[in-house]
Amino acid sequence: MQKCKIGIIGFGTVGKGIYKILKSKNDLHPILKDIEIVGIAVKNINKKRDTKLENNLLINDPYELIKDPNVDVIVEVMGGTDIARDIILKSLKARKSVVTANKAVIARYGNEIYSTAAKNGVYVLTEAAVCGGIPIIEPLKRSLKSNQINKMVGIINGTTNFILTKMSNEKADYEATLKLAQKLGFAEFDPTADVEGHDAADKISILSELAFGGKINRVSISTEGINQIDIKDIEYANKLGFEIKLLAFSERNAININDSLSLNIWVGPSLIPKSHPLATVDGVNNAILIDADPLGEIMLYGPGAGSGPTAASVVSDILNLQSSLTKDTKSIDPLLSFNFWRDCHIIESNQISKKNYLRIICLDSPGVIGKIGDIFGKNDVSIESIVQLDASQNKAEIVVITHEVSNGKFEKSKKEINALSEVELIASQLSCI
Amino acid sequence: MQKCKIGIIGFGTVGKGIYKILKSKNDLHPILKDIEIVGIAVKNINKKRDTKLENNLLINDPYELIKDPNVDVIVEVMGGTDIARDIILKSLKARKSVVTANKAVIARYGNEIYSTAAKNGVYVLTEAAVCGGIPIIEPLKRSLKSNQINKMVGIINGTTNFILTKMSNEKADYEATLKLAQKLGFAEFDPTADVEGHDAADKISILSELAFGGKINRVSISTEGINQIDIKDIEYANKLGFEIKLLAFSERNAININDSLSLNIWVGPSLIPKSHPLATVDGVNNAILIDADPLGEIMLYGPGAGSGPTAASVVSDILNLQSSLTKDTKSIDPLLSFNFWRDCHIIESNQISKKNYLRIICLDSPGVIGKIGDIFGKNDVSIESIVQLDASQNKAEIVVITHEVSNGKFEKSKKEINALSEVELIASQLSCI
Repeated sequence: MQKCKIGIIGFGTVGKGIYKILKSKNDLHPILKDIEIVGIAVKNINKKRDTKLENNLLINDPYELIKDPNVDVIVEVMGGTDIARDIILKSLKARKSVVTANKAVIARYGNEIYSTAAKNGVYVLTEAAVCGGIPIIEPLKRSLKSNQINKMVGIINGTTNFILTKMSNEKADYEATLKLAQKLGFAEFDPTADVEGHDAADKISILSELAFGGKINRVSISTEGINQIDIKDIEYANKLGFEIKLLAFSERNAININDSLSLNIWVGPSLIPKSHPLATVDGVNNAILIDADPLGEIMLYGPGAGSGPTAASVVSDILNLQSSLTKDTKSIDPLLSFNFWRDCHIIESNQISKKNYLRIICLDSPGVIGKIGDIFGKNDVSIESIVQLDASQNKAEIVVITHEVSNGKFEKSKKEINALSEVELIASQLSCI
Repeated sequence: MQKCKIGIIGFGTVGKGIYKILKSKNDLHPILKDIEIVGIAVKNINKKRDTKLENNLLINDPYELIKDPNVDVIVEVMGGTDIARDIILKSLKARKSVVTANKAVIARYGNEIYSTAAKNGVYVLTEAAVCGGIPIIEPLKRSLKSNQINKMVGIINGTTNFILTKMSNEKADYEATLKLAQKLGFAEFDPTADVEGHDAADKISILSELAFGGKINRVSISTEGINQIDIKDIEYANKLGFEIKLLAFSERNAININDSLSLNIWVGPSLIPKSHPLATVDGVNNAILIDADPLGEIMLYGPGAGSGPTAASVVSDILNLQSSLTKDTKSIDPLLSFNFWRDCHIIESNQISKKNYLRIICLDSPGVIGKIGDIFGKNDVSIESIVQLDASQNKAEIVVITHEVSNGKFEKSKKEINALSEVELIASQLSCI
């Protein structure tokens, strides 16, 4: 087997995990012995590190590795967007394949990066960028390619799933649980990207491009986080037989426009029936359900983040490149490369159809449920259940779960309900599957 | 993209599924258009078929397809063992790669088949042979290769899972449920291979070879089926918080002999805690949990059989071969091929350690639980719970669940318990995880 010589850029959690696998005394497949680290580029060579490195692997300048004719593959695990993008593009232009764990860069600059790779006859592999250790990118590029993918729905952010699991199990409020997650290292100091849903939106954007074959306009993904979740909603959901999870959703829509495939893509906190396979996915675990024809429904479940799982995905990508090195380099492997093969567009938010959960605070007066029901009926919104749950000081909390309905009709109903004199506040709104 | 010309041998459920995908009007990746069917070999050309075929694709003699220089890949979906083995070997010797859905042949003749493929510079791909549509063979050969696999445990036979799910949900007995499964087409007329566990043993043998890298002696896999399961055991298990599933289990053992890796492999009906991810896998679905280092635990879940899912796996294997056709054929792709890289052996049954469930029918006399407890204690068998569950006509049923213990110590205890004058019968014994 030909040696595969890699340059690693970044030596944080993932970088250290990669080093650990390659130097491991574990009982690994012999093919792993043929991966050789040429250098590791870091910001500060002299920083004290808990991982002891062999030889003088650390260098300061990542561009040295890109220029080094000895290096076959660049492994970008530094994070961030602008410099990482530059490093990835320059590596590809230097005809070096790239492995990256950087979902933010791929979600934003995927188009430019995929086409630069193709133009230069090399590859960019991204298994570690989505759902840590779960094999999901490779199945989309290979095993599932014999199918028409219809829908993907998943729990693909570990931080928010940890927080929601804790809130649900311990009836704790959001702020306190976020602080705990930060203390335990499951949430970052600035948790915005996770708790506001942007990280999940990055990932569902990458997965949708691979599954449906067209460029996704990342900024059009309707995104809500968990930072508005009230413990009351979790309690009510549990009472009614649901769990609340932050879901990423992507579905093929029947109506296409000018040969461009319509997709319904959103990220948001959602009620899931307790019997649903995704309902038992707890803590920092991730899972993704894929509905495909003729395959049916499969679920891939596992650790969504962490040094070991993410590094394992990076190293398996390196193995894919190593095996491609032995081949006639003039031909590109169509299952390893990725190119868009069609146009896609995200349908507008008011065209999205889904089930909804609504919590309304109103006066505890006998006719109010009827009035709310009338408004939904008039607007053609079919209701699955409407329950009055909590009442105190003349006030009542009413929870409504609708059947699937377009956002347009639902928003119109909400406006009319809000205008009822008995209604004080629409306290929260969530999706349901 | 180079055309990939295939010859299909067999046109039963899976063969028809393949034809349907390749002629599908679904929205599939354009790469699928480059697969061309040269011919389909069947026993009887004139048999009436519900699938209408284009042109004159049907032929009588499978060996004609093997000899045809126009054919790149042979797809063996005829089933059976002896003729299928001959067809696979002759195809490989004619330097044609093979895709097969035939677990019985691979479990028995894998060694001969893998080495013939390697010797002739071609591949044999088997995704459809295990767990129908679930991507499991490819992840073991690719994504998971950066890990040390420690354990695999799965529900990998759809027929028995359908029967056990029905028995559990409807408190129906085994014989009646088997008949229903046969009527619905989920069990064959001769159900032996499924209900006695041999099909699951075939599959865990194939998976273990891929995961651990050594040849498995298929006949040494300790195999029990579900044909002895009493509805009483399912009721008691449910009462105690468990489901009963037919599990296939394969684990790396700490003690190796002469550099040969020791493996603990068995197939048997087992109690699973209801909170365990495998407990909710119902009906004809399959799922497999893989515990690996540094990855952690992942689960792959989906339809374990059926025309569409199995055909989707066959076609994705064909795509893998198609992409290899464009390459320099002198080099073999180490991730697509499979060779044993070490020795493995299965530990003897009395060395296996596991948790056990035992149902004992005895006289309803006050001292009997104490006597049973004493025997286990004396033999160093630690008990998780011992419960007297049903009593009638002076008889009692006692259910014991042990902690993990070697089969040797457990069997010795059983013998002594059987000899107690109060004990009438050890009615059943199951594994627990």
